[in-house]
Amino acid sequence: MTVISLTTDFGNLNGFVGTMKGVIWGIAPDAQIADISHEIPPQDVRQGAIALWRAVPFFPSGSVHIAVIDPGVGTERRAIGARFGSQFFIAPDNGLLTPLLEDAEAAGESIQLVCLDQPQFWLKNVSHTFHGRDIFAPCGAHLAAGVPLSELGTPISEIVRTPLPKPIRTPQGYQAHILLADVFGNITTDLPAAWVKNAPNVTFTVRGYTLHGLVPSYGHAKPGELVALEDSEGYIEIAQVNGSAQEALSAQIDDIVEVHLNG
Amino acid sequence: MTVISLTTDFGNLNGFVGTMKGVIWGIAPDAQIADISHEIPPQDVRQGAIALWRAVPFFPSGSVHIAVIDPGVGTERRAIGARFGSQFFIAPDNGLLTPLLEDAEAAGESIQLVCLDQPQFWLKNVSHTFHGRDIFAPCGAHLAAGVPLSELGTPISEIVRTPLPKPIRTPQGYQAHILLADVFGNITTDLPAAWVKNAPNVTFTVRGYTLHGLVPSYGHAKPGELVALEDSEGYIEIAQVNGSAQEALSAQIDDIVEVHLNG
Amino acid sequence: MTVISLTTDFGNLNGFVGTMKGVIWGIAPDAQIADISHEIPPQDVRQGAIALWRAVPFFPSGSVHIAVIDPGVGTERRAIGARFGSQFFIAPDNGLLTPLLEDAEAAGESIQLVCLDQPQFWLKNVSHTFHGRDIFAPCGAHLAAGVPLSELGTPISEIVRTPLPKPIRTPQGYQAHILLADVFGNITTDLPAAWVKNAPNVTFTVRGYTLHGLVPSYGHAKPGELVALEDSEGYIEIAQVNGSAQEALSAQIDDIVEVHLNG
Repeated sequence: MTVISLTTDFGNLNGFVGTMKGVIWGIAPDAQIADISHEIPPQDVRQGAIALWRAVPFFPSGSVHIAVIDPGVGTERRAIGARFGSQFFIAPDNGLLTPLLEDAEAAGESIQLVCLDQPQFWLKNVSHTFHGRDIFAPCGAHLAAGVPLSELGTPISEIVRTPLPKPIRTPQGYQAHILLADVFGNITTDLPAAWVKNAPNVTFTVRGYTLHGLVPSYGHAKPGELVALEDSEGYIEIAQVNGSAQEALSAQIDDIVEVHLNG
Repeated sequence: MTVISLTTDFGNLNGFVGTMKGVIWGIAPDAQIADISHEIPPQDVRQGAIALWRAVPFFPSGSVHIAVIDPGVGTERRAIGARFGSQFFIAPDNGLLTPLLEDAEAAGESIQLVCLDQPQFWLKNVSHTFHGRDIFAPCGAHLAAGVPLSELGTPISEIVRTPLPKPIRTPQGYQAHILLADVFGNITTDLPAAWVKNAPNVTFTVRGYTLHGLVPSYGHAKPGELVALEDSEGYIEIAQVNGSAQEALSAQIDDIVEVHLNG
Repeated sequence: MTVISLTTDFGNLNGFVGTMKGVIWGIAPDAQIADISHEIPPQDVRQGAIALWRAVPFFPSGSVHIAVIDPGVGTERRAIGARFGSQFFIAPDNGLLTPLLEDAEAAGESIQLVCLDQPQFWLKNVSHTFHGRDIFAPCGAHLAAGVPLSELGTPISEIVRTPLPKPIRTPQGYQAHILLADVFGNITTDLPAAWVKNAPNVTFTVRGYTLHGLVPSYGHAKPGELVALEDSEGYIEIAQVNGSAQEALSAQIDDIVEVHLNG
């Protein structure tokens, strides 16, 4: 029972995702399908890349991840299949897989890349606007049903890369960036918590507000307090206890967080 | 492993859909369940009919589609089961199936209709307000588990029909209508693209704005541009590249789109 | 094929729920997973408890319900496993299970409670902020895969209880409370319909507006009318036909509904 994950900007209003599941189960009847997110902001490849990057490591070996944030649908942009270690991917070639690819390279995992150019694995009629249904879903389902990645397309040596921001070293510490806000209004940065964990006087300044030190979790401060802590992926997160740090700070994605290791 | 699809206006807040899945898996433990949409506007039978109509053709043969947009729950409106070709349906008798029924008739598919009047296939206690849980989910699950449609109810010869708008022929071309807007703000009309594809000077006028000609896909125009194109179902759609045509045009469902074949 | 249900306040934006499903299917590959709700308002344990309470009775015997509304994550609050009759539960110990526990006690069902203190059933690395992924999902999956509840943790004799409001007897009838509003704007109270069904002159007064008597269902009054009726769980609900009673009455959760049995 192969697991397939879906990550799109399709929303849940119009039935696009359900249609993809109909296509998938027509090809791979016993696949388990997990929705990672369908609420990625329209055409926001980076937010899609982040959602996928954070979820994939928790999926079983052999899972197939179909990601469709695809502003270039119907143009010459390539459709790609990939394997990083034991995880498989189907996506438009627009940078959606960059963070996972960089991690796989850093970990020395084996990497396989193909261009999805074998129409016998697509739906018969391919529209110009919904390749999620017509190409990505059936290719992912064929992978899940046992077709080798190498049969789905021609090997390629590189894919489009759009790396995430990374913290910059400064005399006092780092200039970090806000990568995303979650549903609670918690703000996640690109700063690995390990880089500041042993600095008891560390401060974080964002939008003119300075936070002192780290707390272990939300419940270690009072409701309404703004706190910095290690998030569930090992990065520094700024949160408001029982509230929204994003709203309290009017924080935006890509805002700079000034990190001073000694206050 | 029969596939069941669910289409409702129940939203995802209160657990109504999860409850239906609990009921279904108690009867058909290995059914695969695809959510088509639970965000149909409350009581909007037509939007539910459109979502279902667009998704169903992509489901495997033998799928069971349970649709519950049901303003008449608890009144004398009938509950119906149906088979159009190889696809099965469970729904209140209020027009939800009209577009699919019309397509099945046009294609000459075999059609079977029953009134769901056999309480042994319902939950023991039937509420007055949640037939999705008490009648539709168990009937759909019994179908998926192998009970023949003919056992679920008495044959009937006709069901309620509420046809979708259709384009009207005019001296210059057509008067088309906006049928729905998707999550991206793309506006879909009732005009088959095939009717205008060979008219290079075709124009579309909606809310006082005129679009000239067709583009192959979103990526063939500049961000912010309004374009007309063939959507994934073969109908004319109006889109704003990387934006919302619905917002840009203040377009509403049922707005008229004047189509001039020669500009 | 064990059924697992998920109830959280994680939303569907960030991939938290999909990540939990990845974890679950790595341990229990053939589990069926039903989402009850992921739109519980952040940290709103009571709304989570209500959603769970209403959905669980419709799940098959042996289902495993994982509920994660967890403002105390990362503090000393306990993680618990439970069995009430034939249904299993995994949750933080904060009152999420109270209404179900009270019902199980009232029905004389057997009850088993453990503190989840066996890290061999957790993910290897446990974060401070996402026990849904690191503890609750894997413990629920192990249960679904056949590990006895007694192996997941040490028996305990009591869990945190936060009972729901209950109606108060008054000289004229009852003082009831609004428990929740659903996606349609229907308002559910804590008043069992059985207590007022045989009182033909019963009135309900909320926010200064008085409703007279009960209707069988929405379709028995005119669009726009406010009506009282028995909801799908057997409690009194106030609804506006084809509209939102919540908006029409500016009703809030915990508002008092004055019930007069004789008008």
